[in-house]
Order: sequence, then structure tokens, then C-alpha cells
Amino acid sequence: MKLVIVGGVAGGASAAARARRLSEDADIVMFERGPDVSFANCGLPYHIGGVIPQRDRLLVTTPERLRERFRLDVRTRSEVEAIDRAKKTVRVRELNTGRVYEEGYDKLILAPGAAPIRPPIPGADLPNVFALRNLADTDRIKAVVDGGIERAVIVGAGFIGLELAENFVRRGVRTTILDLNKQVLAPFDPEMTAPLHAALREGGVEVLLGQSAEAIAAGTAGMAVTLTSGDTRSAQLVVLGVGVRPENKLAVQAGLEAGPRGGVRVNEYLQTTDPDIFAVGDAVETTDFGTGERTQVPLAGPANRQGRIAADNAFGRKAKYRGTQATAILGLFGHTAAMTGLSEKALKRLGRPYRKVYIHPAHHAGYYPGAEGMSLKVIFDPESGRLLGAQGVGGAGVDKRIDVLAVAVQAGMTVFDLEEAELCYAPQFGSAKDPINMAGFVAGGLVRGDHPQIDWEAVAALPNPLLLDVRTAKEFAESHIPGAVNVPVDELRGRLAELPKGRPVVAYCQVGQRGYLATRVLMHAGFDVRNLGGGYKTYLLHNAGDPARKA
Amino acid sequence: MKLVIVGGVAGGASAAARARRLSEDADIVMFERGPDVSFANCGLPYHIGGVIPQRDRLLVTTPERLRERFRLDVRTRSEVEAIDRAKKTVRVRELNTGRVYEEGYDKLILAPGAAPIRPPIPGADLPNVFALRNLADTDRIKAVVDGGIERAVIVGAGFIGLELAENFVRRGVRTTILDLNKQVLAPFDPEMTAPLHAALREGGVEVLLGQSAEAIAAGTAGMAVTLTSGDTRSAQLVVLGVGVRPENKLAVQAGLEAGPRGGVRVNEYLQTTDPDIFAVGDAVETTDFGTGERTQVPLAGPANRQGRIAADNAFGRKAKYRGTQATAILGLFGHTAAMTGLSEKALKRLGRPYRKVYIHPAHHAGYYPGAEGMSLKVIFDPESGRLLGAQGVGGAGVDKRIDVLAVAVQAGMTVFDLEEAELCYAPQFGSAKDPINMAGFVAGGLVRGDHPQIDWEAVAALPNPLLLDVRTAKEFAESHIPGAVNVPVDELRGRLAELPKGRPVVAYCQVGQRGYLATRVLMHAGFDVRNLGGGYKTYLLHNAGDPARKA
Repeated sequence: MKLVIVGGVAGGASAAARARRLSEDADIVMFERGPDVSFANCGLPYHIGGVIPQRDRLLVTTPERLRERFRLDVRTRSEVEAIDRAKKTVRVRELNTGRVYEEGYDKLILAPGAAPIRPPIPGADLPNVFALRNLADTDRIKAVVDGGIERAVIVGAGFIGLELAENFVRRGVRTTILDLNKQVLAPFDPEMTAPLHAALREGGVEVLLGQSAEAIAAGTAGMAVTLTSGDTRSAQLVVLGVGVRPENKLAVQAGLEAGPRGGVRVNEYLQTTDPDIFAVGDAVETTDFGTGERTQVPLAGPANRQGRIAADNAFGRKAKYRGTQATAILGLFGHTAAMTGLSEKALKRLGRPYRKVYIHPAHHAGYYPGAEGMSLKVIFDPESGRLLGAQGVGGAGVDKRIDVLAVAVQAGMTVFDLEEAELCYAPQFGSAKDPINMAGFVAGGLVRGDHPQIDWEAVAALPNPLLLDVRTAKEFAESHIPGAVNVPVDELRGRLAELPKGRPVVAYCQVGQRGYLATRVLMHAGFDVRNLGGGYKTYLLHNAGDPARKA
Repeated sequence: MKLVIVGGVAGGASAAARARRLSEDADIVMFERGPDVSFANCGLPYHIGGVIPQRDRLLVTTPERLRERFRLDVRTRSEVEAIDRAKKTVRVRELNTGRVYEEGYDKLILAPGAAPIRPPIPGADLPNVFALRNLADTDRIKAVVDGGIERAVIVGAGFIGLELAENFVRRGVRTTILDLNKQVLAPFDPEMTAPLHAALREGGVEVLLGQSAEAIAAGTAGMAVTLTSGDTRSAQLVVLGVGVRPENKLAVQAGLEAGPRGGVRVNEYLQTTDPDIFAVGDAVETTDFGTGERTQVPLAGPANRQGRIAADNAFGRKAKYRGTQATAILGLFGHTAAMTGLSEKALKRLGRPYRKVYIHPAHHAGYYPGAEGMSLKVIFDPESGRLLGAQGVGGAGVDKRIDVLAVAVQAGMTVFDLEEAELCYAPQFGSAKDPINMAGFVAGGLVRGDHPQIDWEAVAALPNPLLLDVRTAKEFAESHIPGAVNVPVDELRGRLAELPKGRPVVAYCQVGQRGYLATRVLMHAGFDVRNLGGGYKTYLLHNAGDPARKA
């Protein structure tokens, strides 16, 4: 058995190590175009920022180590140029020598990754315009920053763009980040990114949304970047992070099928249209775990998982890839944003029914010092309560809750299961009613129809609604939804006469709990009332730029 | 509808608030013997330690707040002395006035909690001997510490005892903690507590295991505590934390059934043997989620959950309690220990088949600064791979992994599902192969029979085993299992001739990964070989007192 692997980073290296664990006998050859194998992709921005000062920490392993430990035949600086499926060979070019040769295979695993998209704008090929994909890119960008620059422009506010922005600021570089969308982090629902926009601005990053770079021109003090608005920004460094495109050339030229966005087609065994050829990682089109649709999700976790599964299948096991759940996380200026499963925007696009709840809990018991806040959005089927997806933004503990929800989504759990979850509680770690339980309570009540709840987006459709702020007078005075009237919940039962009947009432408090009680009180008194889901804090997420906002 | 609740802390207060949310009409009367309702039980040791300086932070809510917001009829300092089930009344004594009166109910929820067990030893009634149950106890203990003392003895190394030990040390009190068991934290498997023993000792706590207090005698400089060994310890403060006993007197006198350990019997709806009387919290016997057996687990999370469910049922819903999973966590001198589901010792006691794996991962990518280590033990069904329980000990991120595993256990997931879990990965939060995935890989391989693995406890039963340390010569020189020979894994394929055939080989590395590879190599070469599960680090857990240990 001879296994040939094309690509030696996340998916390829995982496949190779797994293959050796499965078979001590097999010949395993791994080709990598670059000089490094299995480097820490996700650490690159932090090396530039000086958080990971030693470059060699980014080398998860080396060709030497793989040869020694796994008896892998690792050939770096070796580009696989063509596959001859009939002869079962690949044509390889040694980049250092120019030598070209053929190598046979019994099974082939393609893990070539994805290449950054270079937008077709004037100046994209200027010397200090980069994309960040590998260690060589990292070295080049870091050299420019080390050389001492004043300003940088990052085009594209995805994960890497945002991480770079933070790390440029860390290095004292004044940074502008652009995104054509009206939000950063496109996979997230827009309101959940509002705290990140604030965090970036507080961190000193200029965030320009609905903007891209139209042109980059060389000038005396570096470059001038022309924005969609016509404004310009000067910069000595421009990083393009507008997305990646699967490296599918090898596969497509060999006649393997690829999807409309370029991802190599694979079945659940990660087999391409040639049963002896598997493909994994950023280069493939996988199945979305939530929708069953084809998708492309360039993430390290799935790539590693796929590498392992492809190796299993190459050696005759029948291992299935269950699809990509798109769990992802970002740390940014002390804030965390994480998500798993389907977003609201994806569900809207699919026309699939859903409901959602927002909660705004502390990450551990409020009575123990150091509790940090978070906003958690949980999306579920309106009938069964089955979990569809979740997003969180805040400080400590967001990663924990999204990981818990990721497993709950994987398990096909419902919001009722969240009510019943029994999680770790000591005051420095959580609460007797963990945020996960709280999300379950709110969502469970909604599915059971315990009390009427309304999403902020739906309020505008009500005829002449009365916005009833049931927080304290002090909270109301600090800030409130424009037009709201204030009757604190603790006074509500005695002041019902003040409220006009015949108008729909939308009650709200800070996070939804007092609003729930107020809604119950008003329903009992015969009002047409709804509780604003997630309260004023959810309103603020939706109206981050609202002039009424002071908090 | 009139609901009467006996007890106003975790379970009782949860039931009351839920009841009001369910019904704006109901009369809800809550009796509490003490002066406070709904205080933060789990915060008490930290108030003594000064971590939570403001006492009022421990009051989650007040009787006034409950009256105002929830229109609850809260009567503190009111002891319910008897239940007349035929008349559906309770007899109440006002502790401040001595007045006794009757109060009727339609439904009754008992949430009286549990009382600390006072061991029947001489001197247990001395003035500075306390148990810690409520705010009054907290005030008394704190007053003694505030008064300036040198030494304290804590009898019983459960959660509260250990938290008190840390907080006494924080206050400069030299502290001895005793436990009759050979380990702290009895619900945990013993080897998982070894790092806690070390942490306590490093923290300056004297830990005496297999020891209890036989007598406490008043002396000139405080008290003298006589230990099981005959030794004595002087102390100005003694805290007894040897467990709790359900407060079942009211229930039992009313003819309600209780279990052998005193817990009030309830069905899955938390109904006692009288269908109009429910019982929740530390006072009840519940069902173990993992075994279906009756159990008593005095934890805040389940108490809160039960309060909510009992209220639902009292108001005619049919809400089931799924049983107690016994998820628990402890923070101790910067270490964390957490568990969920069944322990190995519980499975042994039940005679139920199981297998287990240990892994020793970092809590996030090793290449990002600040990674902290942990040991994770996952226990599962040997045939199906279904998860039975998990325990973790280490630093940051233990809580996250046990919470994830708690939900996986709740969902009935298998170790194969852990392989496929898609969790948050950025280098400051996790790894592309998260500890959860790693545990799945190791356990999945074991269930699939991919390679032979042996638990440390089983090594002694092998005939004349060869212990083969496949770590580097440097690691071996630092410390190793006595009698082991060293052949680094990277040299193994070339040095097979050095190994004696005909003897069973137990290969081990630091955590099990290199051992896995070595086992594959040796199997292929015809050796009778097993990989030591969890490697040298697991050996160290089992042999914390081993003289060979230097690390």
C-alpha cells in the first residue's frame, strides 16, 4: 500500500500521522510545495504581534521529525503538478532543482489548501501589499512592521484580518480595517458583531464598513489606498484578507468534480469522484451539518478531522465525515466572539423557520469578583425546540458556552435539554443557573408558549405600540429606547391604571427577566402585551449606533 | 390555589419565583427558619477569606425584594413544625415571638435542606467548633478569624472543607485538614485527587489522610485536637465538615417516606408519597442519572433545577426531573478539579463494566503563551463506547471540558462522537484537536480495538513485564517508572534487537501518544506489547507518593 499526500499542513499532516498509526507497513509520501509542514496557521498574526516571539513555536512539527517518528517520506519544496489517474501517478516538480519526476500511488489524498483571493484592483501587486497564508508571508509582513511603519490598511474584516488589526495595534501601527459588508466577521449575525465594532474602535482601530479598497497607489510615504467612498488612507503596509479560493487546479485538471465556488467535491467518506483519491481541508466542498447543503468552510479543526478520516478510508475503514458545523471563535482586544451551527442570516436565506433568544448573563456568579458579561444568542426550531445554532460575544466564558452548545447541536438536543443541563457550579466558574440553563429557560418558555415574546425587529410592525420600560427610574434616566415610558416592575401592579388599554404593549427591562414578570402581570390585567426578547441589551446590539445610547 | 413552601434558600426560592411566573393569581407563602432567604451558599468560604468582602453580596435576594417583585408572602424566622396532611395545613412557630399558628395549603413544597453532621466526639460542642451551613455560621467563623488566630483544624476534606482551607490560608491561618478517606473529595476517583493533595501542601495546608478527629479538648491557647493516629494539633478554630444529613424530620413525622440515608422519597415529578406534597434540594433522595439508583447529592445546581420543576408540577404541568448527574467543581489554590457522571469507584461498586482513558493535554495550543496543563479521565462503556463519566484536574479550561462532557453524557453520546466534536479553536482558546477530540481518539481506538492498551493497575498482573520507556534519554533521566528500560521511540525501529522477545512489553511515554506509536511498531515486529494508558503522567497520578517521582 502506497499512500501519497499532496499538502503537508493541517489536513495533510493529520492524514499522514494517522496513516502511519494505521499501518506500520505502508509507504507514505507527503509532498509540500512550501518549505514547512504542519505549521500553526492560526498563530501567524500573533507572531507578527510579538505575542509568540519565537518563530519556531509556529512549527508544529518539522519534516525531520515526521521522517524520524512516523517514517514518512516528506518532500518539501515539491509541487505536485498533475495527476495521471489511469496510471495512478503524480508528476512532481522539485522547486529547488527544477527536476520533474513521477511518483506512483495506490491511494491519493489531496490537501492543497486554499489561496488568498487577490482582488483585481490597481496596485494589488505593489511590494508592501500582502496576503497572509503561510510562514513566508508572515516573515514578510513582520519584516515590514519590524522596519517601523506608521500606518497599515487591512482589506477584509474576517478572522485573520481582525486578528492582524489587533496585532498591528499591539506593535504601535495605526490601523484601518475595511469591509464591504456592514459588519465584521461575515459568518456572524450582524447584531452580534456590534460589540466587536466597539472593541475595535476602543482598541484604536479605524473600522470602515461598507467600504473596500478601490485602488492602491505608490507614493512618497508609502501607499495611498483609495476607498469605495473616494476617501484615501495612507499606509506603508496593506494586507488583503478578502477570502480564500480552494486550490483545486490539480483536481480539476485531473477531471475531478468541483463545486460552483471551486471546492473539490467529496462524498461523506471524503472521496472525490475518483474512489482512489480523497480530498480534505480548505480545498474541499463539504456538507453543512445543519442544512445538509454543500458548503466551504476553511477552518483548521475540520481540516484536521478530515485528514484523519480520509486516512481511515484510504486504509479501508469506513469512516464518515458528519459535515461541518462551522464552530469558530475570535479573540479581539480582550473580547471573545464565537459561534456554532446555523446563523439567523443563513436560516433566513434558506427560508427555514426558526426562533431565537438572547440572554446577557455574567460568566460566573455575580457575587464573586471578576464576573464578565456576555451576550448569547441561541437559535432553534420553533416547533420542536431543536437547537440550530448559537453565537456569543463578551469576555471570559464565551468559549465554554459555545463549546457546550456545539456539542448540544451535534447531539441534536433541544432547548428543553438545556434547561436540564447539569454544569459545573462554583462561584468562580459559573452559576447555579448557568447561562446555558438560562438560555434553555427562555427558549423553552417560548416554545411552550408560556408567555408572548417579541423580537426587536418585529416591534416596528405593531400598530402604535407602547414601549414600557419596567427598569428602575435610575436605569431609565441613564438611557432607554426612544419613546418608552417608565413604570418599574416593582410598582407595576399598583400603577396599572396609568397604562392606556387598547394599545399593544412591549415591555422591556435590561435583559428580559423583569420584562417577563411585567408581561405576566399585564396579561393578567387584560393587556395586549409582549416581552421584548433579551431586553434593552438586545435592543442595543441591534442599535449600536443609536444616538439614544449612552451606556 | 395556595402554595406553601418550606425553606427559602436554593430550592425553595427557585420554586417560589417560578410559581409566581406560572401564576399571577396564586397565594404563595414561603417559610424560612433563618433570617435570610436565597443566600449564596457557595460563596460563604470566600467571604470568610475576604475574596467577597461585602457580606451583602451573599444575599442573592431579600425577603423585601421577593415580596415586592414576586408578591411572595415571605416569612423568615418561621419554623414549620408539623404538617397535617388530612387538613392540609402546616403548624408554624414564629421564632422571634414564640407564636404558633396554622397555615393551610393546596400544594406544599418542602425545601428544608440538609444539616451538617456533628460527629459524636468529645468537645464537638466547644465554643469555637463550627459547621458551615449558613450566613450565621459564616459570621461566627469569620469573627473568630478576624479576631486573629494562629491555627485551624478542618475535619473533612469535602468541597466546603477544602474551600475553607484555602480561605483560612488566605487569612494567614495555619490550617490542618483531616479526612478519614485516603483522598480528599470523596466523589472523585483517588488518583485524580493526587494533584489536589500536592496543591494543598504547596499552598501551606497540612493534609492528613486516613485521619479524623477523635476528641477536641479546651486548653489555654485554644483547643487540642486529638487525631486518629494519637497525635494532636492545637487550634483556635475547628470546623466540622464531615457531611450533611437531610432535614427530613418534618416529612417523616408527617408519614412521608424517606430512604435509608434519610432523603425524602420523591418520584420523577419530585412528588413525595403524598401527591400534594413535593420535596426538593438537599433534603431529597433523587435518582442517579447514570445508574438509575437512588442517591443523595447535595448540590446547588440540582436544588435550583428541582425547585423549578416542583413548582411546574404543583401548578399542574408534568415536568420530569431527569435525575442528578453529579456534576461538581472545585477551585483550589489555582487548581481546578471537576467531574460529571459516574466515577470509576462507583462503577466498581456497582460491578458495571467500563473502560477508561487518561489524557494530559494543554488547555489551549501549546505554541500560544500561557497554556496550562490538565489531566482528563473519561469513562465509558467498553462495548458501545457510550460515555459514563469524566473527571478533570488541572488549571484553566478544566471547567470547559467537564461542562462539554456533562452535556455529552446527558445526550447519551459515545466516545466516537467526541472524535467528531467541532469545538472553538483559536490558539488562545483551544487546539485544532481539542482535548475533547483527543479523549475521543484514544477512547475510540480502544473500543475499536485498534491497539492494545493497559491500565496501570493491570500491569502488576502481567508475568515479568518489560517496562519500556520510549521517551527521550533526557526525560528518562529526570524520572521514570522503577525498573523501566529506555529506548526512545525515534530509535525504536532500529533497536528492536535489544528487546527480549517472549516477555510482555508495556510501552509508555509521557502521555500515551509516543507509546501508541511504539506499540504499533512493536506489534508489527511480533512483540507481545501494550501501551500504558495515559503514559507516565497517569502513572504519576497513581503513584503520587512514589519515591521515584521527582517531577
